Amino acid sequence: MDDETEFVVKPIGVIRTPFKSSEDTPIQSSKSDARGYVKVALEFLDALKSLDGFSHIILVYWFHRAKSPMMRMTPFLDTEERGLFSIRAPSRPNPIGISTVKLLRIEGTRLDIEGVDMLDETPLLDIKPFVPEFDNRSQATSGWLAKSSLTKDHSYLADARFEE
Amino acid sequence: MDDETEFVVKPIGVIRTPFKSSEDTPIQSSKSDARGYVKVALEFLDALKSLDGFSHIILVYWFHRAKSPMMRMTPFLDTEERGLFSIRAPSRPNPIGISTVKLLRIEGTRLDIEGVDMLDETPLLDIKPFVPEFDNRSQATSGWLAKSSLTKDHSYLADARFEE
Repeated sequence: MDDETEFVVKPIGVIRTPFKSSEDTPIQSSKSDARGYVKVALEFLDALKSLDGFSHIILVYWFHRAKSPMMRMTPFLDTEERGLFSIRAPSRPNPIGISTVKLLRIEGTRLDIEGVDMLDETPLLDIKPFVPEFDNRSQATSGWLAKSSLTKDHSYLADARFEE
Repeated sequence: MDDETEFVVKPIGVIRTPFKSSEDTPIQSSKSDARGYVKVALEFLDALKSLDGFSHIILVYWFHRAKSPMMRMTPFLDTEERGLFSIRAPSRPNPIGISTVKLLRIEGTRLDIEGVDMLDETPLLDIKPFVPEFDNRSQATSGWLAKSSLTKDHSYLADARFEE
């Protein structure tokens, strides 16, 4: 691939959440019961048809306040340096985030959601239906994270070192 | 948000698969046992540290051969028009794909993977570890897809209307 290849993305809407700083923001949607909403641009109203039957949706978004990435970082609650692609930190070469949230209600271009783990005013890039038959991996194992309290303790909050 | 907001993404590598056309390409990674590999640019070698303990990784990539999106489409094996955000078709306002694949082996900047469902030469944007505690949703329900053979029959292939 040409080293100069690049692509342009444009927000399709915005994610509104209670979180104004990364310190307050839950570390993962699976660990959050915070509510928020998505506001989709009017031109995409038609694209929301049929979405209301899904219990969960995948939000693809831009980590708009992420710092420049480092190839190795020490994640939240960890003591060892990990490679960036083995952690879920927002500071990445392409700062694209994905979160699976509960879909509570759709009204026009507004989607009420539960389990938000991103900062308020996060630019939204895409919405995909979460399809359990496609997206769950019941046999998956979680590498270095298996030893971490991150995958056991649901009560902590994030910090900017690990996830916005 | 400003209507003019846009962001630039640059490939961090490329995904090699056996699939040269969307007609031959499995519709979802969960339905594929095809093998392929990821080649990450050398500058990101360090970011692969610690990834080898994970059984699955999430690839975030660019649907480089997607057509212009339509707000409503009739998905593969379906008869009813659905909103674009309720289907997983590659033609999207921001043609970003996500696939969870099995990680078989890492050797230098090459990752051997299983369960590929994207075209050969797909530009890679990000790698995230799949963390079952973060990413599985055992209680999720799948809306209109619950009635579709897509979520039951594992033997079909995709076509371009639904997923590359």
